[in-house]
Amino acid sequence: MKQITGGVSAPIGFTASGVHCGVKSSENKKNDLAVIFSDCDCVAAGVYTKNQVKAAPIHLTQKHLEDGHLRGILVNSGNANACAPQGMENATKMAQKVAEATQLSPEDFAVASTGVIGVTLNIDAIEAGIPNAVQALSKDGSADASQAILTTDTITKEIAISLELDGKTVTIGAIAKGSGMIHPNMGTMLCFVTTDCAIDKPVLQNMLSSIVAKTFNRITVDGDCSTNDCCLLLSNGKANNSPLVEGSKDYDHFYEALYNVFEYEAKQIARDGEGAGRLISCTVLNAETEEKAESMAKSVVSSSLVKTAMFGSDANWGRVLCAVGYSGATFNPEEIDVSFISPSGTIRVCQDGIGLDFDETLAKTVLSDTEIEIIVSMKEGTEKATCWGCDLTYDYVKINGDYRS
Amino acid sequence: MKQITGGVSAPIGFTASGVHCGVKSSENKKNDLAVIFSDCDCVAAGVYTKNQVKAAPIHLTQKHLEDGHLRGILVNSGNANACAPQGMENATKMAQKVAEATQLSPEDFAVASTGVIGVTLNIDAIEAGIPNAVQALSKDGSADASQAILTTDTITKEIAISLELDGKTVTIGAIAKGSGMIHPNMGTMLCFVTTDCAIDKPVLQNMLSSIVAKTFNRITVDGDCSTNDCCLLLSNGKANNSPLVEGSKDYDHFYEALYNVFEYEAKQIARDGEGAGRLISCTVLNAETEEKAESMAKSVVSSSLVKTAMFGSDANWGRVLCAVGYSGATFNPEEIDVSFISPSGTIRVCQDGIGLDFDETLAKTVLSDTEIEIIVSMKEGTEKATCWGCDLTYDYVKINGDYRS
Repeated sequence: MKQITGGVSAPIGFTASGVHCGVKSSENKKNDLAVIFSDCDCVAAGVYTKNQVKAAPIHLTQKHLEDGHLRGILVNSGNANACAPQGMENATKMAQKVAEATQLSPEDFAVASTGVIGVTLNIDAIEAGIPNAVQALSKDGSADASQAILTTDTITKEIAISLELDGKTVTIGAIAKGSGMIHPNMGTMLCFVTTDCAIDKPVLQNMLSSIVAKTFNRITVDGDCSTNDCCLLLSNGKANNSPLVEGSKDYDHFYEALYNVFEYEAKQIARDGEGAGRLISCTVLNAETEEKAESMAKSVVSSSLVKTAMFGSDANWGRVLCAVGYSGATFNPEEIDVSFISPSGTIRVCQDGIGLDFDETLAKTVLSDTEIEIIVSMKEGTEKATCWGCDLTYDYVKINGDYRS
Repeated sequence: MKQITGGVSAPIGFTASGVHCGVKSSENKKNDLAVIFSDCDCVAAGVYTKNQVKAAPIHLTQKHLEDGHLRGILVNSGNANACAPQGMENATKMAQKVAEATQLSPEDFAVASTGVIGVTLNIDAIEAGIPNAVQALSKDGSADASQAILTTDTITKEIAISLELDGKTVTIGAIAKGSGMIHPNMGTMLCFVTTDCAIDKPVLQNMLSSIVAKTFNRITVDGDCSTNDCCLLLSNGKANNSPLVEGSKDYDHFYEALYNVFEYEAKQIARDGEGAGRLISCTVLNAETEEKAESMAKSVVSSSLVKTAMFGSDANWGRVLCAVGYSGATFNPEEIDVSFISPSGTIRVCQDGIGLDFDETLAKTVLSDTEIEIIVSMKEGTEKATCWGCDLTYDYVKINGDYRS
């Protein structure tokens, strides 16, 4: 298994593009319209936001995925087309226009939108931009596409991995976006993953759901689960491997590669949380069950008090214990150890539920790094889980105090 | 029913005091030790944090309340005595010392602590301060006591109400603290309520639990439920009214007065949330059940994105819909209306799930007031609930980025 370039257009038969059409301000002409396209039919799997308020493109994409097949994905940024007048009408127009430009049917396309809620979509700009975006499709288009799906993100989130399966080279590519409104409860952002691996629809959907549960559902930025979250996985089978069978060695090999792609994207999103300066992970070890470990770890990376302490490089481990304590998981508080780890060192701060003396100067150094691990060790079993988040900073407040202007 | 002065020492037979003993820095000698005392036996009821990690004083107070009786409460601020070495030993010493100073038994006292977690309590300072605090007990002592229980709070939270019951004047007094680590899940802060109303223990406990569910459990500052939350209600019966019977007119009258005291304290805590500039309330109307209305309203006032929008005076109602959508309550998104109300006016921003055109200048004015109501109206029934919170500001990040220094 190795990391390669090319992102979402790296797998055989896939192309991508990103253009500026005018949904975002035309001042600096940032990309705001992306297409991901396969030159042949794909089996496709999706997971969507669990928010009761779902944007129109989510409803449309779910409908188009009913038959389990797609040819491509059309995405705009700058407007979420959620709770907006003519929402479904405009989402439908997007699918129709990209179908027209590719001489396919609207049902061959998934549609996704991200940006402000409640404002009518500038459908004229999108309709005018679609032929340009289709025209621009290329094997080198993933970088442009990864730009075109961003909102408040500061970095693109693109990856590709290749591996050998059954004597064939199989490739997986992905792009994602997400910075605010990020909280573990399904997709929680946009992520589009392509592969040329031959794989049946039910196997693909199971794999997607299982991996999302352990990656995207374990990140948080601000506790807000968006109306537009959507993760799609398209497989066109062009690698010509024998279709994967659950439980086989090839299946496990591909699962691991796909897991790595998702974990990478999840960490990139957490790292790029709005205003974030640090990637914070919390790993709970030696728990009775993985569910308990996950609840505790999620609670820690979600805590505003832990997040502000990390911003201040303050080894305030009491807040970690407090967050574990209200996670909903039952445990013995007298059997919990806590450490902070970064490339600069390790600080053990709590043993058996009681504070340890520690070197405050070293703690400050450890907690000033840009990646910090919080290790919580129970004495109740052998299960573990990791969740990811970021610090809570002045810039989060700044970015969100005036998002619409 | 009328509001009077005197706080927690207003009811007949109660005195209070607050002194500086040295748990807080001796630089500006802020009060850090409080006593609330009744000159005769009280029936007492308590509600406590649901956090699995409970501070030592919580465990001790629960034990001392097992017989349903108390004579007084001893509180220190500056150190939470949670996850701290010798926690239970030091909490026990506090009760012993105040018993010695009053010639009563340790079981006659509740003990509470608030402040930093995981640091050994300065028990010498507290033991030295207790005789002074007992000496200082007076009918005018509530203001000093209300100061002595604060941590990052910027205002004291003191109230007293008197009412006529059965031809007698009955008085209720209260002091509270709470600013960070505030989230609806029981007590969520310290609050001590005294009354001279004659009332049996089971009636008192039912009344406390019922009212806390509708007041303190409906506020949030930062989603963190503390290890030390505790609300105690003491009644010494000195008003000489006939003991209250559930369902009677007097019961209802007293319940209403007590509810007002708790709602006042809850709103004061939300208003004084760490770094807060505005009190935000969310009322959900016309819901199918009160539980659904409460879940939705809690979700809105807990949302970091709603809280930062309120900080920025930004009528970003999409975030309100988004928060209602992930509240866990099921509803039809196409039947939801949203308005913002303040003393400066009313702005209707969403009808039937779709954005309305509104005057942005007026919206900015409405959302620049210090008290803002978010009204969410469903079309599903006749039930309603209100929850309270505050905006999320630079100062919250500042206060919590470096709390321990």
